[in-house]
Amino acid sequence: MPRQITAFSNTLVKRVRSLRDKKHRRAERLFLAEGLRILTEAREAGRLPDYLFFTAEGSRHPLAAALIDTVENNGGEAIETNHDILSKLSGKDNAQAVVGVFPEFTTPLDQLDRGASPIWLVAERLRDPGNLGTILRTGDAVGAGGLILIDDCVDPFSVEAVRASMGALFTVPIAQARWEEFVPWLRSGPGQLVGLSLQTESSYRDAAYASPTFLLTGNEAQGLPEAYEAECDLLVKLPMLGKADSLNAAVATAVMAYEVLARSRG
Amino acid sequence: MPRQITAFSNTLVKRVRSLRDKKHRRAERLFLAEGLRILTEAREAGRLPDYLFFTAEGSRHPLAAALIDTVENNGGEAIETNHDILSKLSGKDNAQAVVGVFPEFTTPLDQLDRGASPIWLVAERLRDPGNLGTILRTGDAVGAGGLILIDDCVDPFSVEAVRASMGALFTVPIAQARWEEFVPWLRSGPGQLVGLSLQTESSYRDAAYASPTFLLTGNEAQGLPEAYEAECDLLVKLPMLGKADSLNAAVATAVMAYEVLARSRG
Repeated sequence: MPRQITAFSNTLVKRVRSLRDKKHRRAERLFLAEGLRILTEAREAGRLPDYLFFTAEGSRHPLAAALIDTVENNGGEAIETNHDILSKLSGKDNAQAVVGVFPEFTTPLDQLDRGASPIWLVAERLRDPGNLGTILRTGDAVGAGGLILIDDCVDPFSVEAVRASMGALFTVPIAQARWEEFVPWLRSGPGQLVGLSLQTESSYRDAAYASPTFLLTGNEAQGLPEAYEAECDLLVKLPMLGKADSLNAAVATAVMAYEVLARSRG
Repeated sequence: MPRQITAFSNTLVKRVRSLRDKKHRRAERLFLAEGLRILTEAREAGRLPDYLFFTAEGSRHPLAAALIDTVENNGGEAIETNHDILSKLSGKDNAQAVVGVFPEFTTPLDQLDRGASPIWLVAERLRDPGNLGTILRTGDAVGAGGLILIDDCVDPFSVEAVRASMGALFTVPIAQARWEEFVPWLRSGPGQLVGLSLQTESSYRDAAYASPTFLLTGNEAQGLPEAYEAECDLLVKLPMLGKADSLNAAVATAVMAYEVLARSRG
Protein backbone atom coordinates (compact mmCIF):
# COMPACT_ATOMS: atom_id res chain seq x y z
CA MET A 1 0.00 0.00 0.00
CA PRO A 2 1.68 3.22 -1.10
CA ARG A 3 2.54 5.86 1.47
CA GLN A 4 0.72 9.15 1.05
CA ILE A 5 2.38 12.55 1.21
CA THR A 6 0.34 15.71 1.03
CA ALA A 7 2.49 18.25 2.88
CA PHE A 8 4.86 20.59 1.09
CA SER A 9 6.94 20.61 4.25
CA ASN A 10 7.58 16.87 4.01
CA THR A 11 11.29 16.12 4.17
CA LEU A 12 11.28 13.82 1.15
CA VAL A 13 9.37 16.36 -0.94
CA LYS A 14 11.95 19.00 -0.08
CA ARG A 15 14.80 16.64 -0.81
CA VAL A 16 13.38 15.56 -4.16
CA ARG A 17 12.61 19.13 -5.11
CA SER A 18 16.24 20.04 -4.40
CA LEU A 19 17.36 17.60 -7.12
CA ARG A 20 16.51 20.30 -9.62
CA ASP A 21 19.83 21.84 -8.56
CA LYS A 22 23.06 20.34 -9.81
CA LYS A 23 24.73 20.69 -6.42
CA HIS A 24 22.16 18.43 -4.80
CA ARG A 25 22.19 15.94 -7.68
CA ARG A 26 25.94 15.65 -7.27
CA ALA A 27 25.64 15.11 -3.55
CA GLU A 28 22.85 12.55 -3.77
CA ARG A 29 23.68 10.93 -7.11
CA LEU A 30 19.96 11.01 -7.87
CA PHE A 31 17.98 12.73 -10.62
CA LEU A 32 14.40 13.44 -11.68
CA ALA A 33 12.52 12.12 -14.68
CA GLU A 34 8.83 12.57 -15.34
CA GLY A 35 6.02 11.42 -17.56
CA LEU A 36 4.47 8.03 -18.23
CA ARG A 37 6.15 7.66 -21.59
CA ILE A 38 9.65 8.38 -20.34
CA LEU A 39 9.32 6.33 -17.16
CA THR A 40 7.91 3.41 -19.11
CA GLU A 41 10.88 3.56 -21.47
CA ALA A 42 13.11 3.61 -18.42
CA ARG A 43 11.39 0.52 -17.06
CA GLU A 44 11.73 -1.28 -20.36
CA ALA A 45 15.42 -0.41 -20.34
CA GLY A 46 15.69 -1.92 -16.86
CA ARG A 47 15.91 1.37 -14.97
CA LEU A 48 13.58 1.80 -12.02
CA PRO A 49 13.17 4.83 -9.75
CA ASP A 50 13.97 4.70 -6.05
CA TYR A 51 10.86 6.83 -5.53
CA LEU A 52 7.84 7.12 -7.78
CA PHE A 53 5.39 9.98 -7.13
CA PHE A 54 1.88 9.85 -8.57
CA THR A 55 -1.62 11.17 -7.93
CA ALA A 56 -4.66 9.00 -7.28
CA GLU A 57 -6.09 10.17 -10.59
CA GLY A 58 -2.83 9.50 -12.45
CA SER A 59 -2.55 5.98 -11.03
CA ARG A 60 -5.69 4.94 -12.93
CA HIS A 61 -3.72 4.91 -16.19
CA PRO A 62 -2.62 1.33 -16.91
CA LEU A 63 0.97 2.42 -17.59
CA ALA A 64 1.06 4.18 -14.22
CA ALA A 65 -0.39 1.14 -12.47
CA ALA A 66 2.24 -1.07 -14.11
CA LEU A 67 5.00 1.32 -13.03
CA ILE A 68 3.75 1.42 -9.43
CA ASP A 69 3.64 -2.38 -9.30
CA THR A 70 7.11 -2.82 -10.74
CA VAL A 71 8.65 -0.20 -8.46
CA GLU A 72 7.08 -1.73 -5.34
CA ASN A 73 8.09 -5.24 -6.35
CA ASN A 74 11.68 -4.19 -6.82
CA GLY A 75 12.41 -2.42 -3.56
CA GLY A 76 11.47 1.09 -4.60
CA GLU A 77 8.81 3.23 -3.00
CA ALA A 78 5.63 4.39 -4.72
CA ILE A 79 4.18 7.51 -3.11
CA GLU A 80 0.75 8.91 -3.65
CA THR A 81 0.61 12.68 -3.53
CA ASN A 82 -1.48 15.55 -4.81
CA HIS A 83 -1.31 17.56 -7.99
CA ASP A 84 0.26 20.60 -6.32
CA ILE A 85 3.19 18.65 -4.91
CA LEU A 86 3.68 16.84 -8.20
CA SER A 87 3.80 20.22 -9.93
CA LYS A 88 6.30 21.45 -7.39
CA LEU A 89 8.55 18.44 -8.01
CA SER A 90 8.18 18.80 -11.75
CA GLY A 91 8.64 22.56 -11.84
CA LYS A 92 5.79 22.81 -14.33
CA ASP A 93 2.22 23.92 -13.73
CA ASN A 94 0.83 21.08 -15.78
CA ALA A 95 2.80 18.31 -14.14
CA GLN A 96 3.06 14.93 -15.79
CA ALA A 97 1.18 12.00 -14.23
CA VAL A 98 4.30 10.58 -12.60
CA VAL A 99 7.65 11.81 -11.35
CA GLY A 100 10.47 9.39 -10.62
CA VAL A 101 13.68 9.75 -8.66
CA PHE A 102 16.41 7.64 -10.23
CA PRO A 103 19.93 6.76 -9.23
CA GLU A 104 22.44 8.27 -11.64
CA PHE A 105 24.26 5.90 -13.94
CA THR A 106 27.09 6.39 -16.37
CA THR A 107 29.24 3.80 -18.08
CA PRO A 108 32.99 3.82 -17.52
CA LEU A 109 34.91 4.20 -20.81
CA ASP A 110 36.52 0.79 -20.48
CA GLN A 111 33.12 -0.86 -20.20
CA LEU A 112 31.93 0.48 -23.56
CA ASP A 113 31.79 -2.24 -26.20
CA ARG A 114 32.97 -0.44 -29.32
CA GLY A 115 31.93 -3.36 -31.48
CA ALA A 116 28.31 -2.90 -30.44
CA SER A 117 27.59 -0.22 -33.05
CA PRO A 118 29.14 1.36 -36.15
CA ILE A 119 28.34 4.86 -34.74
CA TRP A 120 29.40 6.54 -31.54
CA LEU A 121 28.65 10.12 -30.59
CA VAL A 122 31.26 12.22 -28.83
CA ALA A 123 30.51 15.75 -27.63
CA GLU A 124 33.05 18.18 -26.27
CA ARG A 125 32.11 20.98 -23.83
CA LEU A 126 28.47 20.82 -24.81
CA ARG A 127 26.73 23.63 -22.88
CA ASP A 128 23.05 23.40 -23.66
CA PRO A 129 20.93 20.75 -21.87
CA GLY A 130 18.39 20.76 -24.72
CA ASN A 131 21.17 19.97 -27.18
CA LEU A 132 22.43 17.14 -24.97
CA GLY A 133 18.96 15.62 -24.68
CA THR A 134 18.37 15.99 -28.41
CA ILE A 135 21.70 14.32 -29.20
CA LEU A 136 20.76 11.39 -26.95
CA ARG A 137 17.47 11.10 -28.80
CA THR A 138 19.32 11.07 -32.12
CA GLY A 139 21.71 8.50 -30.67
CA ASP A 140 18.76 6.26 -29.87
CA ALA A 141 17.35 6.68 -33.39
CA VAL A 142 20.58 5.83 -35.22
CA GLY A 143 21.41 3.02 -32.83
CA ALA A 144 24.56 4.69 -31.57
CA GLY A 145 26.73 2.67 -29.21
CA GLY A 146 26.68 5.56 -26.76
CA LEU A 147 27.37 9.22 -26.11
CA ILE A 148 30.76 10.12 -24.73
CA LEU A 149 30.86 13.52 -23.01
CA ILE A 150 34.29 15.10 -23.13
CA ASP A 151 35.64 17.66 -20.63
CA ASP A 152 33.13 20.06 -19.04
CA CYS A 153 29.76 19.33 -20.56
CA VAL A 154 26.37 20.26 -19.19
CA ASP A 155 24.94 17.70 -16.75
CA PRO A 156 23.09 14.93 -18.64
CA PHE A 157 20.92 14.44 -15.55
CA SER A 158 19.58 17.99 -15.46
CA VAL A 159 15.81 18.22 -15.70
CA GLU A 160 16.04 19.96 -19.09
CA ALA A 161 18.39 17.36 -20.60
CA VAL A 162 16.30 14.44 -19.32
CA ARG A 163 13.16 16.06 -20.72
CA ALA A 164 14.69 16.80 -24.14
CA SER A 165 16.01 13.22 -24.36
CA MET A 166 12.43 11.90 -24.30
CA GLY A 167 13.63 8.77 -22.57
CA ALA A 168 16.77 8.22 -24.63
CA LEU A 169 18.78 8.97 -21.49
CA PHE A 170 17.79 5.48 -20.38
CA THR A 171 18.53 3.68 -23.63
CA VAL A 172 21.79 5.25 -24.81
CA PRO A 173 24.89 4.50 -22.71
CA ILE A 174 26.60 7.69 -21.48
CA ALA A 175 30.27 7.96 -20.60
CA GLN A 176 32.08 10.99 -19.23
CA ALA A 177 35.80 11.51 -19.72
CA ARG A 178 38.55 14.07 -19.94
CA TRP A 179 40.12 14.34 -23.39
CA GLU A 180 43.35 12.97 -21.89
CA GLU A 181 41.49 9.82 -20.87
CA PHE A 182 39.42 9.51 -24.02
CA VAL A 183 42.24 9.53 -26.57
CA PRO A 184 44.27 6.63 -25.09
CA TRP A 185 41.08 4.58 -24.71
CA LEU A 186 40.06 5.34 -28.31
CA ARG A 187 43.51 4.41 -29.64
CA SER A 188 43.54 1.15 -27.71
CA GLY A 189 41.23 -0.42 -30.30
CA PRO A 190 39.63 0.09 -33.71
CA GLY A 191 37.84 3.38 -34.29
CA GLN A 192 37.91 6.34 -36.66
CA LEU A 193 37.69 9.76 -34.99
CA VAL A 194 35.76 12.14 -37.24
CA GLY A 195 35.64 15.80 -36.22
CA LEU A 196 32.98 18.19 -37.41
CA SER A 197 34.83 21.34 -38.34
CA LEU A 198 34.75 24.53 -40.38
CA GLN A 199 38.53 24.27 -40.95
CA THR A 200 38.40 21.74 -43.76
CA GLU A 201 37.36 21.43 -47.38
CA SER A 202 36.23 17.79 -47.00
CA SER A 203 32.49 17.51 -47.36
CA TYR A 204 30.80 15.06 -45.01
CA ARG A 205 29.09 13.58 -48.05
CA ASP A 206 32.29 12.62 -49.88
CA ALA A 207 34.28 11.41 -46.89
CA ALA A 208 35.18 7.75 -46.35
CA TYR A 209 33.98 6.49 -43.00
CA ALA A 210 35.38 3.47 -41.21
CA SER A 211 33.53 1.48 -38.60
CA PRO A 212 33.23 2.14 -35.73
CA THR A 213 33.02 5.86 -36.42
CA PHE A 214 33.35 8.22 -33.47
CA LEU A 215 31.65 11.49 -34.42
CA LEU A 216 33.15 14.38 -32.49
CA THR A 217 31.15 17.61 -32.09
CA GLY A 218 32.63 20.66 -30.35
CA ASN A 219 31.30 23.41 -28.12
CA GLU A 220 28.27 25.29 -29.48
CA ALA A 221 30.00 28.68 -29.67
CA GLN A 222 33.65 27.78 -30.20
CA GLY A 223 33.72 24.44 -31.98
CA LEU A 224 36.62 22.07 -31.34
CA PRO A 225 40.00 23.18 -29.96
CA GLU A 226 42.80 23.04 -32.53
CA ALA A 227 44.64 20.26 -30.72
CA TYR A 228 41.51 18.13 -30.68
CA GLU A 229 41.02 18.62 -34.41
CA ALA A 230 44.65 17.61 -34.94
CA GLU A 231 43.95 14.29 -33.19
CA CYS A 232 41.08 13.48 -35.57
CA ASP A 233 41.58 10.89 -38.31
CA LEU A 234 39.28 12.92 -40.51
CA LEU A 235 37.75 16.39 -40.42
CA VAL A 236 34.56 16.97 -42.34
CA LYS A 237 32.25 19.90 -42.81
CA LEU A 238 28.63 20.35 -43.63
CA PRO A 239 27.84 22.75 -46.47
CA MET A 240 26.52 26.07 -45.19
CA LEU A 241 25.09 28.20 -47.91
CA GLY A 242 23.60 30.92 -45.72
CA LYS A 243 24.71 34.04 -43.95
CA ALA A 244 25.38 32.46 -40.59
CA ASP A 245 28.38 30.18 -40.54
CA SER A 246 26.94 27.75 -38.06
CA LEU A 247 24.35 25.10 -37.39
CA ASN A 248 22.83 24.06 -34.11
CA ALA A 249 25.22 21.51 -32.56
CA ALA A 250 22.53 18.84 -32.12
CA VAL A 251 21.41 19.33 -35.72
CA ALA A 252 24.93 19.05 -37.09
CA THR A 253 25.51 15.91 -35.05
CA ALA A 254 22.29 14.38 -36.37
CA VAL A 255 23.01 15.12 -40.03
CA MET A 256 26.43 13.51 -39.60
CA ALA A 257 25.07 10.53 -37.69
CA TYR A 258 22.45 9.80 -40.34
CA GLU A 259 25.09 10.05 -43.06
CA VAL A 260 27.31 7.53 -41.29
CA LEU A 261 24.31 5.29 -40.65
CA ALA A 262 23.30 5.34 -44.32
CA ARG A 263 26.83 4.51 -45.42
CA SER A 264 27.27 1.74 -42.88
CA ARG A 265 24.13 0.09 -44.22
CA GLY A 266 25.43 0.37 -47.76
CA MET B 1 22.99 62.32 -29.66
CA PRO B 2 21.18 59.28 -28.21
CA ARG B 3 18.49 59.80 -25.62
CA GLN B 4 19.26 58.32 -22.21
CA ILE B 5 16.83 56.26 -20.18
CA THR B 6 17.71 55.11 -16.69
CA ALA B 7 14.32 54.68 -15.02
CA PHE B 8 12.53 51.34 -14.87
CA SER B 9 9.29 53.33 -14.75
CA ASN B 10 9.94 54.85 -18.16
CA THR B 11 6.99 54.29 -20.47
CA LEU B 12 9.08 53.03 -23.36
CA VAL B 13 10.94 50.57 -21.11
CA LYS B 14 7.64 49.18 -19.90
CA ARG B 15 6.29 48.99 -23.41
CA VAL B 16 9.36 47.20 -24.76
CA ARG B 17 9.44 44.85 -21.80
CA SER B 18 5.79 43.93 -22.54
CA LEU B 19 6.85 42.63 -25.97
CA ARG B 20 7.97 39.48 -24.24
CA ASP B 21 4.25 38.59 -24.18
CA LYS B 22 2.61 37.42 -27.35
CA LYS B 23 -0.51 39.52 -26.70
CA HIS B 24 1.52 42.71 -26.79
CA ARG B 25 3.58 41.62 -29.79
CA ARG B 26 0.35 40.99 -31.68
CA ALA B 27 -1.04 44.40 -30.71
CA GLU B 28 2.13 46.31 -31.54
CA ARG B 29 3.50 44.17 -34.38
CA LEU B 30 6.93 44.61 -32.82
CA PHE B 31 9.39 42.07 -31.44
CA LEU B 32 12.68 41.87 -29.52
CA ALA B 33 16.03 40.64 -30.73
CA GLU B 34 19.29 40.92 -28.85
CA GLY B 35 23.01 40.54 -29.19
CA LEU B 36 25.61 42.14 -31.45
CA ARG B 37 25.90 39.12 -33.69
CA ILE B 38 22.19 38.76 -34.34
CA LEU B 39 21.54 42.49 -34.75
CA THR B 40 24.48 42.79 -37.12
CA GLU B 41 23.06 39.94 -39.20
CA ALA B 42 19.75 41.77 -39.21
CA ARG B 43 21.43 44.94 -40.41
CA GLU B 44 23.24 43.05 -43.18
CA ALA B 45 19.89 41.57 -44.20
CA GLY B 46 18.45 45.09 -44.38
CA ARG B 47 16.43 44.88 -41.15
CA LEU B 48 16.86 47.73 -38.68
CA PRO B 49 15.24 48.15 -35.27
CA ASP B 50 12.87 51.01 -34.49
CA TYR B 51 14.60 51.24 -31.12
CA LEU B 52 18.11 50.14 -30.23
CA PHE B 53 19.02 49.93 -26.52
CA PHE B 54 22.66 49.82 -25.46
CA THR B 55 24.91 50.66 -22.51
CA ALA B 56 27.74 53.19 -22.60
CA GLU B 57 30.15 50.32 -22.12
CA GLY B 58 28.51 48.20 -24.83
CA SER B 59 28.62 51.07 -27.34
CA ARG B 60 32.41 50.96 -27.37
CA HIS B 61 32.34 47.75 -29.42
CA PRO B 62 32.82 48.67 -33.10
CA LEU B 63 29.81 46.53 -34.15
CA ALA B 64 27.64 48.35 -31.61
CA ALA B 65 28.90 51.74 -32.79
CA ALA B 66 28.10 50.77 -36.39
CA LEU B 67 24.62 49.64 -35.39
CA ILE B 68 23.91 52.87 -33.49
CA ASP B 69 25.04 54.93 -36.48
CA THR B 70 22.95 52.99 -38.96
CA VAL B 71 19.83 53.07 -36.77
CA GLU B 72 20.11 56.83 -36.21
CA ASN B 73 20.74 57.51 -39.90
CA ASN B 74 17.66 55.54 -40.89
CA GLY B 75 15.03 57.10 -38.71
CA GLY B 76 15.28 54.73 -35.74
CA GLU B 77 16.15 55.73 -32.22
CA ALA B 78 19.27 54.64 -30.35
CA ILE B 79 18.82 54.78 -26.59
CA GLU B 80 21.54 54.63 -23.99
CA THR B 81 20.52 52.83 -20.84
CA ASN B 82 22.06 50.93 -17.95
CA HIS B 83 22.83 47.28 -17.48
CA ASP B 84 19.85 46.66 -15.18
CA ILE B 85 17.32 47.94 -17.67
CA LEU B 86 18.96 46.05 -20.50
CA SER B 87 18.71 42.88 -18.40
CA LYS B 88 15.08 43.62 -17.73
CA LEU B 89 14.37 44.01 -21.43
CA SER B 90 16.35 40.87 -22.25
CA GLY B 91 14.91 38.77 -19.44
CA LYS B 92 18.40 37.43 -18.74
CA ASP B 93 20.76 38.38 -15.94
CA ASN B 94 23.71 38.56 -18.27
CA ALA B 95 22.08 40.73 -20.90
CA GLN B 96 23.63 41.02 -24.33
CA ALA B 97 25.30 44.31 -25.28
CA VAL B 98 22.35 45.50 -27.37
CA VAL B 99 18.62 44.91 -27.54
CA GLY B 100 16.63 45.92 -30.60
CA VAL B 101 12.90 46.40 -31.13
CA PHE B 102 11.98 45.41 -34.68
CA PRO B 103 8.81 45.66 -36.71
CA GLU B 104 7.42 42.22 -37.50
CA PHE B 105 7.68 41.05 -41.07
CA THR B 106 6.37 37.99 -42.83
CA THR B 107 6.10 37.29 -46.54
CA PRO B 108 2.70 36.65 -48.09
CA LEU B 109 2.58 33.25 -49.80
CA ASP B 110 2.03 34.77 -53.23
CA GLN B 111 5.20 36.82 -52.89
CA LEU B 112 7.40 33.75 -52.35
CA ASP B 113 9.55 33.02 -55.39
CA ARG B 114 9.52 29.23 -55.55
CA GLY B 115 12.23 29.24 -58.19
CA ALA B 116 14.62 30.89 -55.73
CA SER B 117 15.71 27.62 -54.12
CA PRO B 118 15.43 23.86 -54.61
CA ILE B 119 14.45 23.47 -50.92
CA TRP B 120 11.55 24.91 -48.97
CA LEU B 121 10.71 24.10 -45.38
CA VAL B 122 7.09 23.70 -44.30
CA ALA B 123 6.15 23.12 -40.66
CA GLU B 124 2.69 22.24 -39.42
CA ARG B 125 1.52 23.10 -35.88
CA LEU B 126 5.06 23.42 -34.61
CA ARG B 127 4.81 24.05 -30.86
CA ASP B 128 8.31 24.59 -29.58
CA PRO B 129 9.97 27.99 -30.11
CA GLY B 130 13.43 26.42 -29.88
CA ASN B 131 12.52 24.01 -32.67
CA LEU B 132 11.24 26.87 -34.81
CA GLY B 133 14.42 28.88 -34.32
CA THR B 134 16.58 25.83 -35.00
CA ILE B 135 14.65 25.08 -38.21
CA LEU B 136 15.21 28.66 -39.37
CA ARG B 137 18.91 28.25 -38.69
CA THR B 138 18.94 25.04 -40.72
CA GLY B 139 17.00 26.84 -43.44
CA ASP B 140 19.72 29.46 -43.59
CA ALA B 141 22.43 26.78 -43.78
CA VAL B 142 20.86 24.80 -46.64
CA GLY B 143 19.85 27.94 -48.53
CA ALA B 144 16.13 27.21 -48.20
CA GLY B 145 13.79 29.54 -50.04
CA GLY B 146 11.85 30.08 -46.86
CA LEU B 147 9.93 28.56 -43.98
CA ILE B 148 6.17 28.25 -44.36
CA LEU B 149 4.30 27.89 -41.07
CA ILE B 150 1.03 26.01 -41.44
CA ASP B 151 -1.98 26.36 -39.14
CA ASP B 152 -1.33 27.17 -35.48
CA CYS B 153 2.41 27.27 -35.01
CA VAL B 154 4.33 28.87 -32.18
CA ASP B 155 5.09 32.56 -32.75
CA PRO B 156 8.33 32.96 -34.77
CA PHE B 157 8.82 36.35 -33.10
CA SER B 158 8.86 34.99 -29.55
CA VAL B 159 12.05 35.77 -27.65
CA GLU B 160 12.96 32.06 -27.52
CA ALA B 161 12.48 31.48 -31.25
CA VAL B 162 14.45 34.60 -32.18
CA ARG B 163 17.24 33.54 -29.85
CA ALA B 164 17.38 29.96 -31.16
CA SER B 165 17.42 31.20 -34.75
CA MET B 166 20.75 32.94 -34.12
CA GLY B 167 19.81 35.61 -36.65
CA ALA B 168 18.33 33.31 -39.28
CA LEU B 169 14.96 34.90 -38.55
CA PHE B 170 16.26 37.87 -40.54
CA THR B 171 17.71 35.91 -43.45
CA VAL B 172 15.09 33.20 -44.13
CA PRO B 173 11.72 34.41 -45.47
CA ILE B 174 8.79 33.31 -43.29
CA ALA B 175 5.25 32.84 -44.50
CA GLN B 176 2.22 31.90 -42.41
CA ALA B 177 -0.80 30.17 -43.92
CA ARG B 178 -3.72 27.91 -43.21
CA TRP B 179 -3.45 24.51 -44.91
CA GLU B 180 -6.48 25.50 -47.04
CA GLU B 181 -4.50 28.46 -48.36
CA PHE B 182 -1.20 26.65 -48.71
CA VAL B 183 -2.34 23.74 -50.89
CA PRO B 184 -3.91 25.85 -53.70
CA TRP B 185 -0.84 28.10 -53.72
CA LEU B 186 1.48 25.07 -53.86
CA ARG B 187 -0.49 23.49 -56.70
CA SER B 188 -0.50 26.70 -58.72
CA GLY B 189 3.10 26.06 -59.80
CA PRO B 190 5.90 23.48 -59.76
CA GLY B 191 6.71 21.88 -56.45
CA GLN B 192 6.95 18.42 -54.88
CA LEU B 193 5.35 18.10 -51.45
CA VAL B 194 7.34 15.62 -49.36
CA GLY B 195 5.93 14.64 -45.98
CA LEU B 196 8.01 13.22 -43.18
CA SER B 197 6.02 10.31 -41.80
CA LEU B 198 6.12 7.07 -39.88
CA GLN B 199 3.31 5.66 -42.06
CA THR B 200 5.47 4.67 -45.01
CA GLU B 201 8.15 2.20 -46.01
CA SER B 202 9.96 4.68 -48.30
CA SER B 203 13.33 5.59 -46.89
CA TYR B 204 14.33 9.25 -47.29
CA ARG B 205 17.61 8.00 -48.69
CA ASP B 206 16.09 6.09 -51.63
CA ALA B 207 13.35 8.55 -52.55
CA ALA B 208 13.39 10.59 -55.77
CA TYR B 209 13.16 14.29 -55.07
CA ALA B 210 12.00 16.88 -57.58
CA SER B 211 12.91 20.55 -57.43
CA PRO B 212 11.59 22.63 -55.79
CA THR B 213 11.04 20.25 -52.88
CA PHE B 214 8.68 21.36 -50.12
CA LEU B 215 9.62 19.42 -46.98
CA LEU B 216 6.63 19.09 -44.67
CA THR B 217 7.19 18.35 -40.96
CA GLY B 218 4.28 17.80 -38.60
CA ASN B 219 3.53 18.59 -34.99
CA GLU B 220 6.16 17.41 -32.48
CA ALA B 221 3.83 15.04 -30.62
CA GLN B 222 1.31 14.00 -33.25
CA GLY B 223 3.04 14.23 -36.60
CA LEU B 224 1.00 15.14 -39.69
CA PRO B 225 -2.80 14.73 -39.89
CA GLU B 226 -3.86 11.90 -42.21
CA ALA B 227 -5.47 14.26 -44.71
CA TYR B 228 -2.26 16.26 -44.96
CA GLU B 229 -0.24 13.11 -45.61
CA ALA B 230 -2.72 12.16 -48.33
CA GLU B 231 -2.01 15.46 -50.08
CA CYS B 232 1.74 14.76 -50.21
CA ASP B 233 3.37 13.71 -53.48
CA LEU B 234 5.73 11.55 -51.49
CA LEU B 235 5.97 10.30 -47.92
CA VAL B 236 9.37 9.37 -46.59
CA LYS B 237 10.68 8.15 -43.27
CA LEU B 238 13.96 8.30 -41.47
CA PRO B 239 15.27 5.00 -40.13
CA MET B 240 14.81 4.73 -36.37
CA LEU B 241 16.69 1.83 -34.88
CA GLY B 242 16.11 2.67 -31.24
CA LYS B 243 13.47 2.23 -28.62
CA ALA B 244 11.77 5.59 -29.07
CA ASP B 245 9.90 5.90 -32.33
CA SER B 246 10.61 9.57 -32.76
CA LEU B 247 13.22 12.18 -33.48
CA ASN B 248 13.25 15.82 -32.48
CA ALA B 249 11.26 17.70 -35.16
CA ALA B 250 14.04 20.18 -35.90
CA VAL B 251 16.54 17.31 -36.20
CA ALA B 252 14.33 15.33 -38.57
CA THR B 253 13.79 18.43 -40.70
CA ALA B 254 17.53 19.05 -40.87
CA VAL B 255 18.45 15.49 -41.85
CA MET B 256 15.84 15.66 -44.64
CA ALA B 257 16.94 19.13 -45.76
CA TYR B 258 20.57 18.07 -46.02
CA GLU B 259 19.59 14.99 -47.99
CA VAL B 260 17.62 17.07 -50.49
CA LEU B 261 20.47 19.58 -50.67
CA ALA B 262 23.03 16.86 -51.42
CA ARG B 263 20.81 15.38 -54.12
CA SER B 264 20.05 18.73 -55.72
CA ARG B 265 23.75 19.39 -56.05
CA GLY B 266 24.29 16.01 -57.64
